[in-house]
Amino acid sequence: MTRVTRHQVSKNTKSSSQELLYDPDVATPSHAEQAKTLVAQRGIGTLCTLHGEHGHPYGSFVTYALVGGNPVFLVSKLAEHTRNLEGDPKASLLVNAEGKDDPLANARVTLIGACTRLPRGEDTEAREAFLAAHPNASYYVDFKDFSFFQLDVESLRYIGGYGRMSWVTLADWQAAQADPIAAFAPQIIEHMNDDHAEAMIAYCQAFSRASDTKAATMTAIDRYGFEMSAVTEAGPRPIRLAFAAPIENAGQARTALVALVKQARAQLAQQAEA
Amino acid sequence: MTRVTRHQVSKNTKSSSQELLYDPDVATPSHAEQAKTLVAQRGIGTLCTLHGEHGHPYGSFVTYALVGGNPVFLVSKLAEHTRNLEGDPKASLLVNAEGKDDPLANARVTLIGACTRLPRGEDTEAREAFLAAHPNASYYVDFKDFSFFQLDVESLRYIGGYGRMSWVTLADWQAAQADPIAAFAPQIIEHMNDDHAEAMIAYCQAFSRASDTKAATMTAIDRYGFEMSAVTEAGPRPIRLAFAAPIENAGQARTALVALVKQARAQLAQQAEA
Repeated sequence: MTRVTRHQVSKNTKSSSQELLYDPDVATPSHAEQAKTLVAQRGIGTLCTLHGEHGHPYGSFVTYALVGGNPVFLVSKLAEHTRNLEGDPKASLLVNAEGKDDPLANARVTLIGACTRLPRGEDTEAREAFLAAHPNASYYVDFKDFSFFQLDVESLRYIGGYGRMSWVTLADWQAAQADPIAAFAPQIIEHMNDDHAEAMIAYCQAFSRASDTKAATMTAIDRYGFEMSAVTEAGPRPIRLAFAAPIENAGQARTALVALVKQARAQLAQQAEA
Repeated sequence: MTRVTRHQVSKNTKSSSQELLYDPDVATPSHAEQAKTLVAQRGIGTLCTLHGEHGHPYGSFVTYALVGGNPVFLVSKLAEHTRNLEGDPKASLLVNAEGKDDPLANARVTLIGACTRLPRGEDTEAREAFLAAHPNASYYVDFKDFSFFQLDVESLRYIGGYGRMSWVTLADWQAAQADPIAAFAPQIIEHMNDDHAEAMIAYCQAFSRASDTKAATMTAIDRYGFEMSAVTEAGPRPIRLAFAAPIENAGQARTALVALVKQARAQLAQQAEA
């Protein structure tokens, strides 16, 4: 399904000498799912088209919405990318996440395909999705020189950060659902870090090999589980734990996290008695 | 020097019916200067290259540093963009600003040219600039599969926001200096808005036609002047005012802003007496 490439890393770097402190087979979103989640959420990216008679690759900043698995754009006929696409429909859209101090640690996706104008009358779905994502566009959506274009995705490349990358097949992309927790993740993470520091220490001590965890902060949560940075005697270490079953909303996240802390405390109490 | 294109705007929109409340010839950074300032500051962007046998435009997220007017990249031979450039050096780099609620109101630049590997021994300047901009890269700069590439800029397009765009000539790009105030601008703006609300009302009342200004917030500052959003009876209106002479550092910004408020208050007092 995926071709994975890895950098040539020196034997002495931390990343190769550190052993994983959690189950390497823990349920994790697939690259297709991570890509779909990012693209469904972001709404801005770089459209790459072919410019001029020599077909020079040309990047321009765009807003987009997703219809099925295909990005749609509202563009002016005066824009360079529109002229470029009218000359050659070959295009790609690069969408990148933000938030980590090291910009290359953030995820990004390149969607590759042909990008063509949707005829008036066939742009209803695009218009609805686009205006829902970008309400400001209502001011110019009806200008005569604007129209919708759609990038029909043929292949895509996902890079999740350092050393986590693959080509995603079109079938996997089309089947993947954006994470239903993504919209709530920032609030859940903030709440856990503000109010449930002890619960996260218990998770790490009970369910990972970081049994010397002194503190832990949540760094990510998705339908399948959540990630923490555990402060151990050997320094900060990543821990990922899975939910018993995939969750679908913020309420189920709360229920699952509460169930896990009860289970963790019971297990730790039992170990202390033994 | 520049080709300017404009959207076809309905006659009834605000932007065409509102008259400018300040001198339309006020000193303003050129598009070349605005582009250079943005590219010198940002450090991240989208590299567009040609992928595969059919030369499909391909966008990838990159970090860069600027050497003279040319971006340099530290890339792995395993990365798609590196393979793409080895096949065809044609490339562009899209760099976009952030910060405004409407993403299309932010400035962006597309730098177009050929991007080629700098041979070891000729990459000293690139290495120095890159590591200064991206200290994290010191962990892999010496990996054998990494090397520096340089995009030799041939032409560029600047988009300052809605309706403010042009092709910038190579001569203008090379001559343009990044704004020396850019690094201090956020602090100056915060300070003015927190502590000098009265001064900004005086600027607007004395030096613009927004004589009914009831409140004003600073939105931008550069070597030539500064911009405010003035709250007038007809709603919020943009005002740009120039310094008597270009400034070069935060100290000169302070001196110039203090001199202007004295001048504004003297002028308003004189008007009140008349």
